Amino acid sequence: MKIGLLIIGNEILEGKINDANLRQLSLFLRQHHLELSASITVTDSEDAIHLGLKTLFSTCDVVVTSGGLGPTKDDVTKEAIASFMGRKINYAEAAYEVAIKNYERFSRPFAGKEHGYCFLPEGFVALNNSTGFAPALFAEHSGKYIVCGAGVPKEFKSLLEDHFLNLLQNKFPVSSELIESITVRTKRIPEEKIFGEVDPSLWDKLSHLGSVSSLPTTMGVDIGVKIKAHELQELSSKKERVLAIFENSAVKP
Amino acid sequence: MKIGLLIIGNEILEGKINDANLRQLSLFLRQHHLELSASITVTDSEDAIHLGLKTLFSTCDVVVTSGGLGPTKDDVTKEAIASFMGRKINYAEAAYEVAIKNYERFSRPFAGKEHGYCFLPEGFVALNNSTGFAPALFAEHSGKYIVCGAGVPKEFKSLLEDHFLNLLQNKFPVSSELIESITVRTKRIPEEKIFGEVDPSLWDKLSHLGSVSSLPTTMGVDIGVKIKAHELQELSSKKERVLAIFENSAVKP
Repeated sequence: MKIGLLIIGNEILEGKINDANLRQLSLFLRQHHLELSASITVTDSEDAIHLGLKTLFSTCDVVVTSGGLGPTKDDVTKEAIASFMGRKINYAEAAYEVAIKNYERFSRPFAGKEHGYCFLPEGFVALNNSTGFAPALFAEHSGKYIVCGAGVPKEFKSLLEDHFLNLLQNKFPVSSELIESITVRTKRIPEEKIFGEVDPSLWDKLSHLGSVSSLPTTMGVDIGVKIKAHELQELSSKKERVLAIFENSAVKP
Repeated sequence: MKIGLLIIGNEILEGKINDANLRQLSLFLRQHHLELSASITVTDSEDAIHLGLKTLFSTCDVVVTSGGLGPTKDDVTKEAIASFMGRKINYAEAAYEVAIKNYERFSRPFAGKEHGYCFLPEGFVALNNSTGFAPALFAEHSGKYIVCGAGVPKEFKSLLEDHFLNLLQNKFPVSSELIESITVRTKRIPEEKIFGEVDPSLWDKLSHLGSVSSLPTTMGVDIGVKIKAHELQELSSKKERVLAIFENSAVKP
C-alpha cells in the first residue's frame, strides 16, 4: 500500500508554522509496518491542490490530506478535491450529524444545516473528529482512496488513531508488505571513514537485507536499514540478521 | 519568480528527523519579498526524485533541492538530476577545487580526484559550501534554474545566504513581484465568530488588498494578508491600508 501526504496551507509555505503532520503520519505508519512514499506541500488554492493530488495519485494507492477543512474562505480543500474528481458538493445529513455532535461536545452553538461542514463532495463519508469541529472525510477515487483531515496536529492525530486503519486495512494486502526500519548509531567515526576504511563491505552486506541509508547527526552517524517482509516472523528474522552483521563488523553501535 | 523546493531524504519521510529547510527557505525568501510556491518531499530514489523535479518544473521557474549530496550510496541526488535532464556526470576541476578547499578548512584529508564530490552533471556549476564538505550546485534547465544544496540545515542555510540571490536576482524581474505577508493576531474570539458576527465584511475588505488567510492558534486567530506590489513604496502603502482596515474594524489585534 503506497501512501502519499498532501499538506495544504499557505501558513506552512510562508514559514509561519512548521508542519507536524508529515512526521506524525510517518511514525504512525511505522508502528503498523507501513511507510510514507511522498509528501507535497501546496498553497490553499485549487490549482495547487489539483497538482498535488494528480502527482500523488499517479504513484500512491492512498492519499492523505492535511489542512483546509476549516470554516473560512481560505479553506478550499473540499472544493478543490471535488473539482479534481469531477464531483458536486452537496448537503449531507451524515456530515451535519458529525458536525453538530462535535459542537455539542465543546458546548458551542452550531450555525445549522447551512454551515459548510454539512456539505461533502458526492460519495464522500464524513468521519467523526474527536478533537475538533470539522468532520474528516473519506472516499474511493478510481480504485484508490483519499482520507482528508484537519491540519491542526492534534486533530490530524486523532484522525489517524480513530479511523485510519479501520478505513484501509482491508483495502490492500497490507500483510504482504510489512516494513520495519532498524537504525544503528555509530559514534566518533566520520561517515566516509565508516564505509571507506573501517568496513568497506558493510553497505553491500546490509543491502542484501534491505534498503540502507546513512544519516550524519551531531550525535553520530545513524545507519538505517529498511527491511520488508511478507509476515512478522520473516521481519524479525531479517532484523536479527541485520544486527548480526553489525556484531561481526568493526563498525559498532 | 516561482520557487519550488524538493526535499530529498528517506530520513524525513520515515519520521527520523523533521525537515527544517522548508521553513528556512520560506523565511529567507520572505526577507527578500519572494515566496515559496510548493514543496515536495521524496525518498532517495531516482524515480521519486524524477517525479518531484517534473512536478516542480511544471509550475516553477526555480527549483531548489535539499539533501542527497553526501558521499554514501544513498546519496543519489546528482545522478537523479543528471538522468532527469539527460546529462552525463563528469569529473569537474572546479568541483575538485571547492571540495579540497572545504576539507582543508576542516583540516580533514581529502581522498582526491576520485571522490564523488569532484563529479558534476554536465553544465552544472560547483558552489562553495562554507559550512560543510559537499559542493552545492547550480545550473540552467530549459530556461529555468536549479540550485542543489546539502540537507543539513546549517549547510542549506549557508547556501541561501552565500549564493541564492547572487545566482538568481538578475534572472527574473524580481522587482515586478514584491511580496509581503502581514499577520494580525486577534484574541479571545473564535475564528467563525470573527468573520461571521464581529465583522462579516472584514474578509472581503482585506481581499481587495491581497490574499487573506486565517489560522487559529492556541494564542489566538492569526489573520494574514499577503500583499503584492511592483515597488517598495506601493508595498508599504498597501500595508498601511491593511492596518487601517483593522483600525476601523471591531476585530482588534
